[in-house]
Amino acid sequence: MLKVGIMGSSGFAGEELIKILFRHPEVKITALAAKIEKIHVSKMYPWAKVMLDLDCFDMSADDVGKISDVVFLALPHKVSMDFAPALLKKGKKVIDLSADFRIKDKAVYEKWYEIKHECPDYLKKAVYGLPELYRKEIKTADLIANPGCYPTSIILGCGPLLKNKMVDTNYIICDSKSGVSGAGRTPTQALMFTEIAVNSFRPYKVNFHRHMPEIDQELSNLADAKIGVNFTPHLVPMERGILSTIYLKLNKKLNTKEALNIYKDFYKGEYFVRVLEEGVLPDTKNVARSNFCDIGMQIFPEKSLAVVMTAIDNLVKGASGQAVQNMNIMYGFSEKLGL
Amino acid sequence: MLKVGIMGSSGFAGEELIKILFRHPEVKITALAAKIEKIHVSKMYPWAKVMLDLDCFDMSADDVGKISDVVFLALPHKVSMDFAPALLKKGKKVIDLSADFRIKDKAVYEKWYEIKHECPDYLKKAVYGLPELYRKEIKTADLIANPGCYPTSIILGCGPLLKNKMVDTNYIICDSKSGVSGAGRTPTQALMFTEIAVNSFRPYKVNFHRHMPEIDQELSNLADAKIGVNFTPHLVPMERGILSTIYLKLNKKLNTKEALNIYKDFYKGEYFVRVLEEGVLPDTKNVARSNFCDIGMQIFPEKSLAVVMTAIDNLVKGASGQAVQNMNIMYGFSEKLGL
Amino acid sequence: MLKVGIMGSSGFAGEELIKILFRHPEVKITALAAKIEKIHVSKMYPWAKVMLDLDCFDMSADDVGKISDVVFLALPHKVSMDFAPALLKKGKKVIDLSADFRIKDKAVYEKWYEIKHECPDYLKKAVYGLPELYRKEIKTADLIANPGCYPTSIILGCGPLLKNKMVDTNYIICDSKSGVSGAGRTPTQALMFTEIAVNSFRPYKVNFHRHMPEIDQELSNLADAKIGVNFTPHLVPMERGILSTIYLKLNKKLNTKEALNIYKDFYKGEYFVRVLEEGVLPDTKNVARSNFCDIGMQIFPEKSLAVVMTAIDNLVKGASGQAVQNMNIMYGFSEKLGL
Amino acid sequence: MLKVGIMGSSGFAGEELIKILFRHPEVKITALAAKIEKIHVSKMYPWAKVMLDLDCFDMSADDVGKISDVVFLALPHKVSMDFAPALLKKGKKVIDLSADFRIKDKAVYEKWYEIKHECPDYLKKAVYGLPELYRKEIKTADLIANPGCYPTSIILGCGPLLKNKMVDTNYIICDSKSGVSGAGRTPTQALMFTEIAVNSFRPYKVNFHRHMPEIDQELSNLADAKIGVNFTPHLVPMERGILSTIYLKLNKKLNTKEALNIYKDFYKGEYFVRVLEEGVLPDTKNVARSNFCDIGMQIFPEKSLAVVMTAIDNLVKGASGQAVQNMNIMYGFSEKLGL
Repeated sequence: MLKVGIMGSSGFAGEELIKILFRHPEVKITALAAKIEKIHVSKMYPWAKVMLDLDCFDMSADDVGKISDVVFLALPHKVSMDFAPALLKKGKKVIDLSADFRIKDKAVYEKWYEIKHECPDYLKKAVYGLPELYRKEIKTADLIANPGCYPTSIILGCGPLLKNKMVDTNYIICDSKSGVSGAGRTPTQALMFTEIAVNSFRPYKVNFHRHMPEIDQELSNLADAKIGVNFTPHLVPMERGILSTIYLKLNKKLNTKEALNIYKDFYKGEYFVRVLEEGVLPDTKNVARSNFCDIGMQIFPEKSLAVVMTAIDNLVKGASGQAVQNMNIMYGFSEKLGL
Repeated sequence: MLKVGIMGSSGFAGEELIKILFRHPEVKITALAAKIEKIHVSKMYPWAKVMLDLDCFDMSADDVGKISDVVFLALPHKVSMDFAPALLKKGKKVIDLSADFRIKDKAVYEKWYEIKHECPDYLKKAVYGLPELYRKEIKTADLIANPGCYPTSIILGCGPLLKNKMVDTNYIICDSKSGVSGAGRTPTQALMFTEIAVNSFRPYKVNFHRHMPEIDQELSNLADAKIGVNFTPHLVPMERGILSTIYLKLNKKLNTKEALNIYKDFYKGEYFVRVLEEGVLPDTKNVARSNFCDIGMQIFPEKSLAVVMTAIDNLVKGASGQAVQNMNIMYGFSEKLGL
Repeated sequence: MLKVGIMGSSGFAGEELIKILFRHPEVKITALAAKIEKIHVSKMYPWAKVMLDLDCFDMSADDVGKISDVVFLALPHKVSMDFAPALLKKGKKVIDLSADFRIKDKAVYEKWYEIKHECPDYLKKAVYGLPELYRKEIKTADLIANPGCYPTSIILGCGPLLKNKMVDTNYIICDSKSGVSGAGRTPTQALMFTEIAVNSFRPYKVNFHRHMPEIDQELSNLADAKIGVNFTPHLVPMERGILSTIYLKLNKKLNTKEALNIYKDFYKGEYFVRVLEEGVLPDTKNVARSNFCDIGMQIFPEKSLAVVMTAIDNLVKGASGQAVQNMNIMYGFSEKLGL
Repeated sequence: MLKVGIMGSSGFAGEELIKILFRHPEVKITALAAKIEKIHVSKMYPWAKVMLDLDCFDMSADDVGKISDVVFLALPHKVSMDFAPALLKKGKKVIDLSADFRIKDKAVYEKWYEIKHECPDYLKKAVYGLPELYRKEIKTADLIANPGCYPTSIILGCGPLLKNKMVDTNYIICDSKSGVSGAGRTPTQALMFTEIAVNSFRPYKVNFHRHMPEIDQELSNLADAKIGVNFTPHLVPMERGILSTIYLKLNKKLNTKEALNIYKDFYKGEYFVRVLEEGVLPDTKNVARSNFCDIGMQIFPEKSLAVVMTAIDNLVKGASGQAVQNMNIMYGFSEKLGL
């Protein structure tokens, strides 16, 4: 049994990791850390009563490392880079769900996150944990930079057309919609039930969200061109799920059927990416609590426009599920285990 | 135009008062106070933009009194009793939405609210602002103790049967369910959207809620007997609304039709109490954003059981709407104005 | 008192009309028609109990006309054009909430709605009831074609920039999100609570929605150029509200402040359009149950991109509220009455 | 691998069975039947795409039996009794989720369900599938009458006190609240999103719900006394979950700690019943999508009142999860498999 530790157990990604890893037949959760008073997991998460018998408390990375083979960091950015090096030096594998190791260019990271990067050496060693693009590198990685939720939904949606250089890279519009869990668990008035369950749907941080540089980096890699997307995130009054509607200007004549074939080809053998049939559009409910990414598409040849729509669960394929998928790849387990 | 001030404008009851009073043709809102940095009302409540041009800030009761004829205190208990006397001494009328003047017995108040009452003299002067029971007293009152939301739903539901001495007063069971706004606006993790909109329905404070002594006091008055109810409040994943299901053991033979007639008689001329026809049950959505209390009932004569079900909007008939109804009575306006 | 009839009282727009007109001080609802068995309004809408004493039944246009001065047709397309002529010939004013008189070009109507237009002569006489654009014509109109909900949110959002010819008219992207009431009241499995309140957010009818020709017609008029938008509607798990995120390619250098000034200028004196300050974005909850349209904006000069975001309540400014606003204009009432 | 067939795949219980059985390591779903046109499971349930490759169509019980070892009947009452005998005669095991074999007294069944029972002989053979009470009988049963959702929540809540004869059996009050999936999947206006997600909470069928005779039968068995409960179901605006608040009059002096010990004793070794600590109350969210039943309790000795609160997921422990638990017992699998 692989021993896994979770640092940041009290957030949504941490909770989702516990749920997924609990039903994973090849692992045993050995450590639950969080910056809180010691508490039994069944007090923190009453759903876990009788399922898991473990205390959660403010453990050091060192202490977590001592009893774990692999450590998930479900931490805010900045905190992860404080913990990862110690674990890696001890020979532990680290799957980091924060943004700290996603951006290859230190300067870009520091500009968007407004802090100094403490261990830039690791930026090169970290592998961007999107299995559909980097499976080979993930297999042998020690440090995974697990992708952000919005980026996952957008990169998977744009990948095939960009890779095939069929898109005008100057005018990519990503209109994304996320469930409220994407905003985290820290109580604020704006996130109260009474503020959201009152017919509230709203955009925020237009072209200002910290997932932008991550999206730009990966799309640029795919297209082999410098890309700067337009990105408008919105908050949907539901718990979980992201739907991204992506508008791409095509530079090739193409119809929907042809485009879908390009996607099916690109994602051949990828269990967790489901390219939908022509006329079928994704719905976040179909991927809720699963690690799937559903992709639907409509091409308007007369307008040279592709509308690509992707749906994921922000906490699963957009965070903890993908992290476990990465772990499965790193340890040679079947990629679906626990998922 | 009657000049009205609102202290506690930043809470739910305060916000609802602004909404109601804004469309009241005989009043002008002159003061918005809250313990916050000065802010324009349209910043605090973007829905109010262009509707209302007023700053909200940390005004003293004195300052509010200077520019108002009547002052609504939409404040937490304890704070109200600090402010009310100063206003009353200046000749202002005060409608207090807190619990501070509801409990006639100082000792009972102090036990349940775990603080000393600062101005017990006013307990006698205060009129319990349930128009259906105390309209005459309200007309000439200077200080209204506006009823709690749960008590309103329960007292109106029990009133007719208790008044007619048809109930075994030893075994009254009140199973109440409230929307989340009843829990107030202070951000806590338990009240976040992500904690509630996940199939969460739960009881809390069984026979331990501070509305109990208020319910007991008024039911005892009605029945002319000492009553101690059993009261289980529950939290419903919706914004607003209270539904109380009340189980009464009858000491008289009675069928549903006869009971409904007793209720129709008791509430004759009461616009805001709607006794439903036999076979029709209340639904909180039918009273949402209105000042109505809907009452449905089913009697099981063979079991000597009455099941009375009442629905109100906790923020309207259960708070701000009833407060304005009281104001209308105090100033001789049509009782429906603004409501 | 103006006598108003409502045909189509059993749908959402009909219900909303009843709510609004009930509190309108200058009108009296005299007829409620719907294709259903005769039923008292309080049975159909329990919230209306004691408020309104009227039966709703399957009245002919003739019979409604006999007891009304103005008739609201809250009917499906096709049905409206069967009723409107008879009423107009009797000298009644008609405010039609269906699509039947919105599209000036009969052929376009017939293509999109897949039926023959029965009374094309009225297309010219009908005035498109968007007061911010056609107030003068509305004043003297007999037949109002009340705008669709999506079109209202998009036309108001694009108006000022198009009118000022600042936009590349070939690549307008409208990504709209609507609450579920937009889909009407006919029960289908897809619209059940249990299908939607399970983290469901989804696009539908990409570039295929019947509101498209209406949007194209009005934007073309504004820009004085032939416009064909890209329009992706989405379903949001909330009752009401539309938020449209509109991406416009600018052909003029412009910053956010300048753009906002253009909007403030364009909507000067328009009570129901609120242009938000720089940095403030709209939220559907701020316009819920009101007739306001909130407009926020961010310009990215280096990308020549304008992101315009508008929020309305689809049942109010997007339907019944705007219909009453039109009635107020037609009869010389204050435009805000009842709203 | 055990071959399982599901009849009634298109309802909620059927869908939940597919979800649970799909992840069960010892079974293979071999037949999906429903009274609909032939459709691939991934069209009916888009979440199942790539997971399950099976058509669903209108198969006869015979045809299902040919390819299955055990058949789940997730059918409406009346339909189950048409199918079960044929399957049983073929030596198949049947787990029936309808009410057809739950009520031992044919006359009671026929009175409440208003139809003739077609195969009363099977009433005796059927085992009431509540493992916590009938595990021994379930082990060797061929026909399981899987309990109703409300009964499960109430019987488990009352069991220990009734068994110990500590309750006045004449005045049991069960105030239950259910998520909307309990009302089934047939589209009606009352179950639309737009009717429920508008602050709707309501009681229905007071002392009139068909689960009553089932509750009475099992409570009477437990108490060895004729019991007729008072039962008020309510509809909660959430997808799934039942919370029952049960008021029991005690005939023994007892405090909360003692009562909890009685419950812990009664449910010793029962993995799926979690007796909560003193002061902890159940919440439906803690059991959502799990087979647990959480039980909380507060005793008021001075009032001789026990308030027992239980939470289950109506589709899991209240239907399909319990059905699989029964299957696990019948086939000697670990009781937790798949759950």
